[in-house]
Amino acid sequence: MNTTVNAMETRQLKELAQQLRVDSVRAADAAGSGHPTSSMSAADLMAVLLAKHLRYDFERPQHHGNDRFILSKGHASPLLYAAYRAAGAISEAELLTFRRLGSRLEGHPTPRRLPWVETATGSLGQGLPVAVGIALAGKRLDHTGYRVWVLCGDSELAEGSVWEGAEHAGYEHLDNLVAIIDVNRLGQRGPTRHGHDLDAYARRFQAFGWHTVEIDGHDVDAIDRAYAEAESTAGQPTVIIARTLKGKGVESVQDREGLHGKPLPDAEAAIAELGGVRNLHVEVQQPPPARVLHAVRSGHLELPRYDTGDKVATRDAYGQALAALGTARGDVVALDGEVGDSTRTELFAKEHPDRFFECYIAEQQLVATAVGMAARDWVPYATTFAAFLTRAHDFIRMAAISGSGINLVGSHAGVSIGQDGPSQMALEDLAMFRALYGTTVLYPCDANQTAKLVATMADREGIRYLRTSRGDTPVIYSPTEEFPVGGSKVLRASDEDRLTLVAAGVTLHEALAAAESLDREGIQARVIDLYSVKPVDRDTLREAAEQTGCLVTVEDHREEGGIGDAVLDAFLDGRPVPRLVRLAVRTMPGSATPAEQLHAAGIDAESIAAAARLLVETAIVR
Amino acid sequence: MNTTVNAMETRQLKELAQQLRVDSVRAADAAGSGHPTSSMSAADLMAVLLAKHLRYDFERPQHHGNDRFILSKGHASPLLYAAYRAAGAISEAELLTFRRLGSRLEGHPTPRRLPWVETATGSLGQGLPVAVGIALAGKRLDHTGYRVWVLCGDSELAEGSVWEGAEHAGYEHLDNLVAIIDVNRLGQRGPTRHGHDLDAYARRFQAFGWHTVEIDGHDVDAIDRAYAEAESTAGQPTVIIARTLKGKGVESVQDREGLHGKPLPDAEAAIAELGGVRNLHVEVQQPPPARVLHAVRSGHLELPRYDTGDKVATRDAYGQALAALGTARGDVVALDGEVGDSTRTELFAKEHPDRFFECYIAEQQLVATAVGMAARDWVPYATTFAAFLTRAHDFIRMAAISGSGINLVGSHAGVSIGQDGPSQMALEDLAMFRALYGTTVLYPCDANQTAKLVATMADREGIRYLRTSRGDTPVIYSPTEEFPVGGSKVLRASDEDRLTLVAAGVTLHEALAAAESLDREGIQARVIDLYSVKPVDRDTLREAAEQTGCLVTVEDHREEGGIGDAVLDAFLDGRPVPRLVRLAVRTMPGSATPAEQLHAAGIDAESIAAAARLLVETAIVR
Repeated sequence: MNTTVNAMETRQLKELAQQLRVDSVRAADAAGSGHPTSSMSAADLMAVLLAKHLRYDFERPQHHGNDRFILSKGHASPLLYAAYRAAGAISEAELLTFRRLGSRLEGHPTPRRLPWVETATGSLGQGLPVAVGIALAGKRLDHTGYRVWVLCGDSELAEGSVWEGAEHAGYEHLDNLVAIIDVNRLGQRGPTRHGHDLDAYARRFQAFGWHTVEIDGHDVDAIDRAYAEAESTAGQPTVIIARTLKGKGVESVQDREGLHGKPLPDAEAAIAELGGVRNLHVEVQQPPPARVLHAVRSGHLELPRYDTGDKVATRDAYGQALAALGTARGDVVALDGEVGDSTRTELFAKEHPDRFFECYIAEQQLVATAVGMAARDWVPYATTFAAFLTRAHDFIRMAAISGSGINLVGSHAGVSIGQDGPSQMALEDLAMFRALYGTTVLYPCDANQTAKLVATMADREGIRYLRTSRGDTPVIYSPTEEFPVGGSKVLRASDEDRLTLVAAGVTLHEALAAAESLDREGIQARVIDLYSVKPVDRDTLREAAEQTGCLVTVEDHREEGGIGDAVLDAFLDGRPVPRLVRLAVRTMPGSATPAEQLHAAGIDAESIAAAARLLVETAIVR
Repeated sequence: MNTTVNAMETRQLKELAQQLRVDSVRAADAAGSGHPTSSMSAADLMAVLLAKHLRYDFERPQHHGNDRFILSKGHASPLLYAAYRAAGAISEAELLTFRRLGSRLEGHPTPRRLPWVETATGSLGQGLPVAVGIALAGKRLDHTGYRVWVLCGDSELAEGSVWEGAEHAGYEHLDNLVAIIDVNRLGQRGPTRHGHDLDAYARRFQAFGWHTVEIDGHDVDAIDRAYAEAESTAGQPTVIIARTLKGKGVESVQDREGLHGKPLPDAEAAIAELGGVRNLHVEVQQPPPARVLHAVRSGHLELPRYDTGDKVATRDAYGQALAALGTARGDVVALDGEVGDSTRTELFAKEHPDRFFECYIAEQQLVATAVGMAARDWVPYATTFAAFLTRAHDFIRMAAISGSGINLVGSHAGVSIGQDGPSQMALEDLAMFRALYGTTVLYPCDANQTAKLVATMADREGIRYLRTSRGDTPVIYSPTEEFPVGGSKVLRASDEDRLTLVAAGVTLHEALAAAESLDREGIQARVIDLYSVKPVDRDTLREAAEQTGCLVTVEDHREEGGIGDAVLDAFLDGRPVPRLVRLAVRTMPGSATPAEQLHAAGIDAESIAAAARLLVETAIVR
């Protein structure tokens, strides 16, 4: 409120905003595609932020004192890249590589290619939730005083995920978070729901506990005052709701429909109308010195140990191992989707309350918080029922595009949960996670294996997914056994093997029982525990195929995209493919006991043995 | 406000509520699992609704005048089933089959098994959005005056999807919608964010344009007045925010933590404390006579026709075919995620504005609206970029559990969209849809094929998914060609074929070009257009495998869960499996032209030909 802007500053800020507009127009024109009009509406907002409020060292993007900026309306990437140019981070020549093969300047920004980008955007309504995650890390973990700025479009406020994030930020009193809404009135196909009714947005944010400021988004002095007001607001996040015009500054496109995502029809005339090309350079404020001690409490890892023969649910082992990992590593944090008693994340919460985050029943925010914390170098484990991770599929997809290093853990996998019925059963989670780029997919069958995998996954690149089960299963491995990612365990093998059973998780125990039963009939079956579903242990599977001739895969999951398909990955390079029968859940389950469910789905020991018998008799099973 | 309740009525309503509590306790006790305490908090709310406000004919659940009731907090199913018993819809004996194998009374209710259930619940935050869809159908399509009642938990208000739905309902002035929030203060693992702060919820709903009423949820007279107030409120949806106690009525569990999802420890004592078993019967109000003419304007279908050799994007053909289908069928409605100009749904909007629904950038509500309208026998086509359908994965999963008949159409599939980059590219959509129960997955390569499939999918059971492409592709089929679901087209075949190329959509054209090029080298390749990805044409694939020995699959999708895996479905019953090479997108794309993208991903004609050459030389390709 008390910041004063003198006439010179005002003039310079306006000039800078015009430069950002001109450069947005130029970039899109060079590319032949892109979103200049969506960039032009927010140019004044960006200019004032860059020149007067952002504290950021472009030479040291990992500096712990840096403010964080997220362009939630990722399609306005020309504006972001124009700002990078003004800050001296990229050259004019690079600006004009926009959207070309090999350029770092993609249609929508990604941290995979640009060091100053916190998270990939382009799927709307995700920037704010991730900003909430970073701001939460700032308040409760990093304590270095940085501020998180997020520039949103007005159209994307229709996404529920924005309100999920708004609720979380308000509840957590994140006064280090500033959302800037570029209310340019026009979405892709036409007017938004609320047009230029700034109050409509203000009422909503206020209801969720935010401080709101409504301004003319083309008045640089008003913008400057609003940012200062946000900086001085304590105990609440601030949202600046700015009335703007799409395509501002060029009469032929300004505030007009039908011009979303298109270069300007006459770029040269537009640039002239905007006052021509400029070469202003902005000295962005440096951040204060700052240090974060992510692993200050790191020590020796003492994983829980289970006795073979005991019966322990893998979800229990998960909770115990996570708590132990939290003791050994100060950089591990745990996030819960309000089911921590079921997933056993509560065991971490009890031991490390300062690194435990309750995200309530809000799976998109759960994953966004993980992405935000990973961007700040924390090692998050976000856990809920595996079925409900589908709620965050698009967030996980974008996290994969970001190259975000997050651990996602889904409990209550499969029909074997029993009575609760299909809404609570994850039957498509392996398919979802396997199909995403660069993921690791792990599915343990016993407690010691779970504990080891919980520790191992922490240091993988990209998204790591661990699938746990509700019911108790026998401990079959010693606590000293190792389980490398990409490996498998051959639990039965002989020279007489006539087929191989491949399973993981609960069905591994069914497969072992089936092999026993087949053995009594004189049929030797190899059994492979495929705990690493992706990457898969190609060598062991190929050897089994060569030696035993045919395979039966069995999984508590739909037949598409799970363990059966993972096994086939070993054979899809043109080599001979073994005969294979895939046992999986093909029905729509109802309520029943776990044993009844496994039987009804045809994935219990009896069903496996029946399929194996038919297969070795060379009959066709389906 | 003006409804009067006399003393007798009040006493009876209280008795009925106690009966619902007792029956909830009994059902969970018989099952040995379930959520009685979550049922007990809402028993008074349910009793008053059933006895005094709901208009419903249990003998005729499809009656067009029936009010609709959705139990969004689906885990409170004992309460629902207790209400069914009180209404005479199920017997006491059936009530006690709760959660047993073969019972209709599942842990969470589904319309697949119970005719009075509108939509499957159990994944929280979905009941309200689906109710919004039904209420919208009521206001704008059915016009029969029914009201939609939805009972929500307080925990689930953390889900962004609730606010996506609240925004939609407020904007559409759905005064035929009543949400009842059972604010029992306790979630699964502990207190909710706002506890018993009813105002916190009221502020939020008011901001989204709702009329709010705050009451004591155990005061049957107050409940009755609130329902009457909702019924007399015009121009706005109403939310009744009711302060309740979890486990109300049984001292040992009432308002206590740690008792979620568990039968009462001493059911007999609890029943006694609640006044014992009762056998009250409720005569539920009958609905008024009503008729809906879904297909009043039905006529002859004149699909668009395209000339072979022309270049037309399948998204264009989709929009044109959908508009034509809307002309022929009065029951077809179109829903847009604010990208109708890109997906071409706008062509339907122009011709049939009364059956077009803009859902804005809110994919969960988009799918929920489709589910709601399908529940009212409309035939919805909900369309957005295929990548953004991942945002609604959990809603689609629940729709599959419901057995909902909806058409989902995703445009801009794959890397071939070009410059916009990975956030806009659907690369996992086939995997997502294939893994869901009972889905149909279609992926056309030309305009005439698209038009036919758009019409065909309307009459399938379950979820039908159509994948369209951004760029123009040559028309290769005549307008008279038929494309049955589960079929395929063999576009090249000879006795000399040494391998088979299997493709669909954009890569089909690349496969044809590769076959031409191989032909010039003396290698004959069969080419199959696998437009029906699920179900897949097993016979044709098996014949091709037998006759040509090996297969190359090629798809603009990740390698997991797409066309390659669909092809293998034909061989996973133990029969010999052909040698196979799967070409798919294994990289993380950036921005580039469509042709550059196809080449970089190794799925263009050149890459296909190279893989084919290696395969016929029996080398291993990967």
